[in-house]
Amino acid sequence: MRVAHQFAPPMSALLAGLPGITSATHVPAEDRWALPCDVDVLFVLHGEGDHDSRHAAADAPRPPGWPGQVKLVQLASAGADDYPPWLWEAPAVASASGTTAIPIAEYALSVMLAHAKRLAEVTLKPGDAWPDRQNFIGQPLGLLHGRTLGLVGLGNIARRIGHLANAFGMTIVAARASAAPSPDPWISTAPLDDVVARADHLVLAAPITPSTQHMINGERLARMKSDAHIVNVGRGGLIDQAALLAELDKGRLWASLDVTDPEPLPAGHPLIGHPRVKVTPHISWSNPDINRAIMQRLVENIGRVAGGQPLLGAVETAP
Amino acid sequence: MRVAHQFAPPMSALLAGLPGITSATHVPAEDRWALPCDVDVLFVLHGEGDHDSRHAAADAPRPPGWPGQVKLVQLASAGADDYPPWLWEAPAVASASGTTAIPIAEYALSVMLAHAKRLAEVTLKPGDAWPDRQNFIGQPLGLLHGRTLGLVGLGNIARRIGHLANAFGMTIVAARASAAPSPDPWISTAPLDDVVARADHLVLAAPITPSTQHMINGERLARMKSDAHIVNVGRGGLIDQAALLAELDKGRLWASLDVTDPEPLPAGHPLIGHPRVKVTPHISWSNPDINRAIMQRLVENIGRVAGGQPLLGAVETAP
Repeated sequence: MRVAHQFAPPMSALLAGLPGITSATHVPAEDRWALPCDVDVLFVLHGEGDHDSRHAAADAPRPPGWPGQVKLVQLASAGADDYPPWLWEAPAVASASGTTAIPIAEYALSVMLAHAKRLAEVTLKPGDAWPDRQNFIGQPLGLLHGRTLGLVGLGNIARRIGHLANAFGMTIVAARASAAPSPDPWISTAPLDDVVARADHLVLAAPITPSTQHMINGERLARMKSDAHIVNVGRGGLIDQAALLAELDKGRLWASLDVTDPEPLPAGHPLIGHPRVKVTPHISWSNPDINRAIMQRLVENIGRVAGGQPLLGAVETAP
Repeated sequence: MRVAHQFAPPMSALLAGLPGITSATHVPAEDRWALPCDVDVLFVLHGEGDHDSRHAAADAPRPPGWPGQVKLVQLASAGADDYPPWLWEAPAVASASGTTAIPIAEYALSVMLAHAKRLAEVTLKPGDAWPDRQNFIGQPLGLLHGRTLGLVGLGNIARRIGHLANAFGMTIVAARASAAPSPDPWISTAPLDDVVARADHLVLAAPITPSTQHMINGERLARMKSDAHIVNVGRGGLIDQAALLAELDKGRLWASLDVTDPEPLPAGHPLIGHPRVKVTPHISWSNPDINRAIMQRLVENIGRVAGGQPLLGAVETAP
């Protein structure tokens, strides 16, 4: 099949060598949503290298003749947000959901443990005094063992986090959009209001949709334990950030945020450097296998489109 | 039984309320190894609040009439190093080994993940530019999944680390002092020279004895993968620190050290602030349950001495 992609021009040569791909062309970066309609497959990524383009995606004009000969739109992201809404007029759209569950779950555990063990604080810097052992009896480091993990969402990423947290001996309770039972015996489900109230660590791993926007609002933040730790690996918009900042400034809650609203955060934003917050720049997906995993998803879905089989990561409607 | 302890004076009231303890007295801090011989149990801790006292412990004079009526010496530490050698002339000595396996294993995973995810580097500080996503494709964050964990030692702490690493999908190989097979099917055993050569993360969780002193010497460091990460939660003396510094200064290896030789490290020591090293001040044992767990061990062993049963954490000979 003929593929067009939005990545750097050298990607064309890589793609053209993959099974099922007969040609690969590059969509110029300066007009990235002017997608061609005379190819079979589009391989695209929201806000590539520039998250400020999110509104450009929403407002991007529909290409003339869209969707033309396009049979498959393969997103290179796990989330389907921040794409032009007319993309879903194509016969099939699939995301990369599932390809990054392992690295994102490892990231979530890394910030949960770094928070519990206060790594940024206890790692010695030149000139630091060697602290007295009594300090660590009176103000001990935390444990994951025996604490409660609240999961918001119960997709591939949340389930992988649950698998790891279970090994640490955490109690795990999840709030999910559907009423389906938990797929894993070590994860129980509960309404979101209960999950936020019970969590020592609350990990957000839900997609952003009109119904999840600001689901962690001021009222739910107020229900949380005073010392609870929020980890966001979903989307910044899941949290009402102004309400979160208000709680933090009262000396309540802690947060490790890999996603924010907007991205990038403007220079001088109060979340960056806040004593109760660690912000990382949307990097939890990063891993040595990232290109191989996404291209494997593309090749697999090209085969499935050709064979009339259900797609991996199919996204039926615009979020 | 009558107990004497080396902790802060208020500990006496706590101990006197525990089952099997009829009285508790305090050994003055200024002469902490002048232990009384007219009690049944001594509850002691090496270098309490001052690791410089390690040599004082080795050189401390035997109390007149030692061991007198003493039936049990209960160490409050997992390691039996850094105590006066004559302590073992008492009828029974037990350590706190096993009471801190969970917190120390969590610490080991915390620094393995912090290293893999480069948390200290990627956490945004005020004034940092928001990095381009391409940086994290070209220089991706690491994964524990699929990497090899080398364990040196295979006691309670190492086995708990193996349990956690197994959930992450690591391959686990351990070098142990005995020729006994691995107690856990997910941990294989191999000679130390092989373990150091195969490890992506090498975790030291062995006791310090004359035969383990500097077991990680220049020759073994040279066998390690250039990018391997050493985690020391055992004792500083397991590593030849001068040889480690020489490797680090060649741009080889990384290290997260909770124990060093000596402790405290002198001000300005090259390990503190070294770009390839994170030092924490021997705090991996710290957890909210520490006092309860150690006192539970004391009470349990007092009952076992009274009943003539084998002790938990029995230490037969001076290390």
